[in-house]
Amino acid sequence: MTAGKPLPVAVVGASGYSGAELVRLLARHPLARITALGANSEAGKPLSALYPALRGLDLPLLEKLEPGDLAGRADVAFLALPHTESMKSAPGLLAAGLKVIDLSGDFRLADKAQYEAFYKHPHTEPGLLAEAVYGLCELHGVKVAGARLVANPGCYTTTSILPLYPLLKAGWIQPQGIVIDAKSGVTGAGRKLSAGTQFCEVDGNFSAYRVAGAHQHIPEIEQELSAAAGQAVTVTFTPHLLPINRGILATSYGMMVKPGTEEALQACLADFYRGKPFARVLKGGELPTLRAVVGSNLIEMAVKLDARAGRAIVFSATDNLIKGAAGQAVQNLNLMMGWPETAGLDLIAQPV
Amino acid sequence: MTAGKPLPVAVVGASGYSGAELVRLLARHPLARITALGANSEAGKPLSALYPALRGLDLPLLEKLEPGDLAGRADVAFLALPHTESMKSAPGLLAAGLKVIDLSGDFRLADKAQYEAFYKHPHTEPGLLAEAVYGLCELHGVKVAGARLVANPGCYTTTSILPLYPLLKAGWIQPQGIVIDAKSGVTGAGRKLSAGTQFCEVDGNFSAYRVAGAHQHIPEIEQELSAAAGQAVTVTFTPHLLPINRGILATSYGMMVKPGTEEALQACLADFYRGKPFARVLKGGELPTLRAVVGSNLIEMAVKLDARAGRAIVFSATDNLIKGAAGQAVQNLNLMMGWPETAGLDLIAQPV
Amino acid sequence: MTAGKPLPVAVVGASGYSGAELVRLLARHPLARITALGANSEAGKPLSALYPALRGLDLPLLEKLEPGDLAGRADVAFLALPHTESMKSAPGLLAAGLKVIDLSGDFRLADKAQYEAFYKHPHTEPGLLAEAVYGLCELHGVKVAGARLVANPGCYTTTSILPLYPLLKAGWIQPQGIVIDAKSGVTGAGRKLSAGTQFCEVDGNFSAYRVAGAHQHIPEIEQELSAAAGQAVTVTFTPHLLPINRGILATSYGMMVKPGTEEALQACLADFYRGKPFARVLKGGELPTLRAVVGSNLIEMAVKLDARAGRAIVFSATDNLIKGAAGQAVQNLNLMMGWPETAGLDLIAQPV
Amino acid sequence: MTAGKPLPVAVVGASGYSGAELVRLLARHPLARITALGANSEAGKPLSALYPALRGLDLPLLEKLEPGDLAGRADVAFLALPHTESMKSAPGLLAAGLKVIDLSGDFRLADKAQYEAFYKHPHTEPGLLAEAVYGLCELHGVKVAGARLVANPGCYTTTSILPLYPLLKAGWIQPQGIVIDAKSGVTGAGRKLSAGTQFCEVDGNFSAYRVAGAHQHIPEIEQELSAAAGQAVTVTFTPHLLPINRGILATSYGMMVKPGTEEALQACLADFYRGKPFARVLKGGELPTLRAVVGSNLIEMAVKLDARAGRAIVFSATDNLIKGAAGQAVQNLNLMMGWPETAGLDLIAQPV
Repeated sequence: MTAGKPLPVAVVGASGYSGAELVRLLARHPLARITALGANSEAGKPLSALYPALRGLDLPLLEKLEPGDLAGRADVAFLALPHTESMKSAPGLLAAGLKVIDLSGDFRLADKAQYEAFYKHPHTEPGLLAEAVYGLCELHGVKVAGARLVANPGCYTTTSILPLYPLLKAGWIQPQGIVIDAKSGVTGAGRKLSAGTQFCEVDGNFSAYRVAGAHQHIPEIEQELSAAAGQAVTVTFTPHLLPINRGILATSYGMMVKPGTEEALQACLADFYRGKPFARVLKGGELPTLRAVVGSNLIEMAVKLDARAGRAIVFSATDNLIKGAAGQAVQNLNLMMGWPETAGLDLIAQPV
Repeated sequence: MTAGKPLPVAVVGASGYSGAELVRLLARHPLARITALGANSEAGKPLSALYPALRGLDLPLLEKLEPGDLAGRADVAFLALPHTESMKSAPGLLAAGLKVIDLSGDFRLADKAQYEAFYKHPHTEPGLLAEAVYGLCELHGVKVAGARLVANPGCYTTTSILPLYPLLKAGWIQPQGIVIDAKSGVTGAGRKLSAGTQFCEVDGNFSAYRVAGAHQHIPEIEQELSAAAGQAVTVTFTPHLLPINRGILATSYGMMVKPGTEEALQACLADFYRGKPFARVLKGGELPTLRAVVGSNLIEMAVKLDARAGRAIVFSATDNLIKGAAGQAVQNLNLMMGWPETAGLDLIAQPV
Repeated sequence: MTAGKPLPVAVVGASGYSGAELVRLLARHPLARITALGANSEAGKPLSALYPALRGLDLPLLEKLEPGDLAGRADVAFLALPHTESMKSAPGLLAAGLKVIDLSGDFRLADKAQYEAFYKHPHTEPGLLAEAVYGLCELHGVKVAGARLVANPGCYTTTSILPLYPLLKAGWIQPQGIVIDAKSGVTGAGRKLSAGTQFCEVDGNFSAYRVAGAHQHIPEIEQELSAAAGQAVTVTFTPHLLPINRGILATSYGMMVKPGTEEALQACLADFYRGKPFARVLKGGELPTLRAVVGSNLIEMAVKLDARAGRAIVFSATDNLIKGAAGQAVQNLNLMMGWPETAGLDLIAQPV
Repeated sequence: MTAGKPLPVAVVGASGYSGAELVRLLARHPLARITALGANSEAGKPLSALYPALRGLDLPLLEKLEPGDLAGRADVAFLALPHTESMKSAPGLLAAGLKVIDLSGDFRLADKAQYEAFYKHPHTEPGLLAEAVYGLCELHGVKVAGARLVANPGCYTTTSILPLYPLLKAGWIQPQGIVIDAKSGVTGAGRKLSAGTQFCEVDGNFSAYRVAGAHQHIPEIEQELSAAAGQAVTVTFTPHLLPINRGILATSYGMMVKPGTEEALQACLADFYRGKPFARVLKGGELPTLRAVVGSNLIEMAVKLDARAGRAIVFSATDNLIKGAAGQAVQNLNLMMGWPETAGLDLIAQPV
């Protein structure tokens, strides 16, 4: 870490929830400085006109950015764009010499066909798809260090993969038959207006959506878990909408391969993540809770054994806008730049 | 139904959430009249001192009731007491000639050993345990009609059993390997003060509790599902606490026994519950939502097929204080008295 | 009240929150039957496609209605339209022989100039403005009984006027210097999509809006309070947005004209509203609370004396979609038809 | 600021909400280090057993502390105790050579009689009452710098006083007739179990409490506003409970002394607080909102003119646990130690 000039960075798509959270984190980052904020429909406004929480910050105005515009103005660009938009912007940014951290789904899947099946859209940049590093930091941090293009994982994805990965890799749970029952706060749906995210629809309500194999995060989860298991893994993934702003809690179920104790399962997770600053493995009777992680870059994980049924139950919790989006993007920046992994991420969840 | 004198009924344990909701429903019931309200620690107060929503009702004061006190004052007693308390009160009430509808867990399990294992307390009334009818109205309505003692089912229980029962009975899903991932509003925890139900702990938070085979509703679920399957069923049941007041949504998973279509599964449910006024089976792409049931005595159910994984996913939703407690108790009263099943239950959920 | 054929009624603008709540109430009304539901942009759909809570009701489909379309199909039309739309629809409906209950602001103000100043729109039906009866039932019930066109009051308005009216009329509080600090749930803003009513903006948040004399409900409040005081009353009215779905609580402040006791003030309110089924005046230390009224057609009111400052503090609470909109509209229907004032309005707020 | 050894500090009463928030802030403070945590009833436990958000911190265990115990272990003690407890602990701590920042109401009022009237308890330390500096940093920062005992202001108090002070001092608003209508999140009620703060009572609800001159923060507000006005000020203060965890919004009303423009009023506030890092005065049409301040040490303020009524309306918002408690306590620490006022307080509210 150098006390020198901070790194100039740009946020493209700053007006969305992930973009605004990135701005909040980068504004406090000791080694980076925001030099440009892209947002087409809101160009010309200050970001604080959309987010009063950012009123006090000294930030550039929102502007309509073409990829070439950032040459010489930023060394790294964060793309907080909808999917299909990132694959249009990334090539020009890379050509202009920037590194790119993309928060969309455009570069996460190694298999172009999978992308096209789940995103219902052709992939126009297969070369970059091959180059991109999947930035799930706790698994692929080493590769991120040398990357030019990082695909920042999804929120459900990060929360689902991390606790299951070590248990599959160690052969504790069966690769087939995994169920992931996930519950997310509303910020996960983004800032776009929709009837389903109006306060009056969500408050006091709860339901599932995009069920039975339809959600676009499924191939990303299966890609990583298959790597862990050394064979193709198919999961049943059910997302639900919680009447809260932030946080994902996933409850995952896997059949035990062999008899084992809860302590052995907990040790498997704890050993795997030892020394990882943002992975907190709980022990004993503790269970993850949104309160413990919302506002921080942490993932909390615990595993319990349902001995009656021969099943491991895996709990995990994150803040979907931080570890599930903007925070992990900053973590990827830190890894790419060789900075301390925790720089700018010294956040502690509020006790209440 | 007669236009004659309304039936005198008593609510014992009126100060709790289920008790207060019973009072609200019975106060509007065209064929019943509340003649006594029992509540030890709050005796002497009006119930509206605890629940301002009940300010306008003409109700007896809360009183400390001994079982014999109700002889001649009520024909039916609702017991909205904590478990272990109901088994103390029920014998005296029955001896005094009342019929009893018990909302606790004391008379729900046919197997005394199961009760003692999950409730950690000896059962002192095995005779009544044998006599009690399990009042899950859609399954056991005929038996309820002649009962003297009805065990009103639990909230998680009602919500979990009803959608799985027909699918197991018809042989669509495997009896083993069922996972029930359930999410409940906070009223399910009752009115007793606890740190875990303080507003500041719950708001914006979400987590699981009593996991991995610990929850006392498990044997009740397994008892009924085993009857459906014709063999012993073991489920993995995971309850979670939602930051809302009312409502349970259960997402349940079962492996398909044989290939089938989503339409066939939906038809199985729809056929089974045809003509049942409080069971609403959804079709097509509709999914249950708390908004559709909270404030009503309905259960909504839907089944989806995850063809990738060969798994049926079953969704169900209720208002835990109505169909999961007080409303089903009134439905049981109606069945016991030979009244229309819907009397006093003409409730429609609020659109927003 | 006759046990004869139910009255055919139509709801125009059924897709909005007030419209949907009207449908819910009318569907249970013993003397009315819904024969048509108007909603332009959603024509052809069932209302339950927008509101799953209404799934179980037997209702006509939404349709695009021209005023003449209702001749012979309905005797009374409820207009749950945005302001400026009602004044377009009402003349044709009246010409077709229907009675009209309008929930918009179009016919509430006797003074056309006031309408145009606050609604920023010309009033094209001054004749109907003169004819319309202001349907604040507790004040103008007698006039409503003979009306052809009723202007149903606003939600803030009903809540603000009722507790202040008797105190001004009796000369307890000064006509000048009244402050009304009001807080409303989000349903008050209607179903129209807007950034300000997205869940993520509202949840955990609170702020004022349309402050310092800008809100369009001000002239309606001043019109009625001036009538009570016998002189022009100017109020400061500050609306705030609560992170809840339903309910308005208004805290109003007025300087005492003369020394008096809290008991005398309470008696003034209690005497004025004696016998009114939906006006509940609290006494002693009780204060209105949303819990006590949400889900019902009640208004709760209380008055306290701040002796240190010589000021009366007046509290009032309603459900903005019921007493503040759809419930009062049904109450007006009952008064117009000579039915019991409470028909179809036997609602009790949920205790929790 | 020195890069030397961090200052050892203790938090007495760490188990309450203000105590836990202090721990969160001090754990990240670059110049302080927590060396002791006092909490009688929870002694022996880690603080994270009560607050999972603090699981990752390296903290001393909770212990039962006698004043003398901290000699040599801490240079400054924060007292996050209930009122009447602080006046028992402070003398011993001061005698042991510590500086004390007290978050209770025990040392805030210069007038012993006022304390006893509002807190219904004798004051046993009149000498310390005279010595204590009222730590409303923006008004009394200079005195705080030399203080041995600082009385940290209340949450309602800070939020109410700061926007009214300059307007009274400059003679814009009349000292008599001020109304403060304040709305607070539930954390303001503290961690003590009570029926009124259970989730099921608060969620979806809203009401006033301790109205008409009863709230113990009134004399504190009047003490400071009287100093601003140069004459005795009596306010009407009405607190309300919001169904959210954190945040206070106060809407205050004062009659104009003389004609003036909204711009002149805004300038009065802006000039007074120029250069104060935690006071944000809004201009134009912007209004304070909880979203903009919760999670930060900021107070947002705005003033609007209701020209129709000749009244200034003053809006202000804070996070009651930060600027209203723990954050201002750290700000006082910074001022006492001659550190940068913002040390450890570089917090930015979440955009959503």
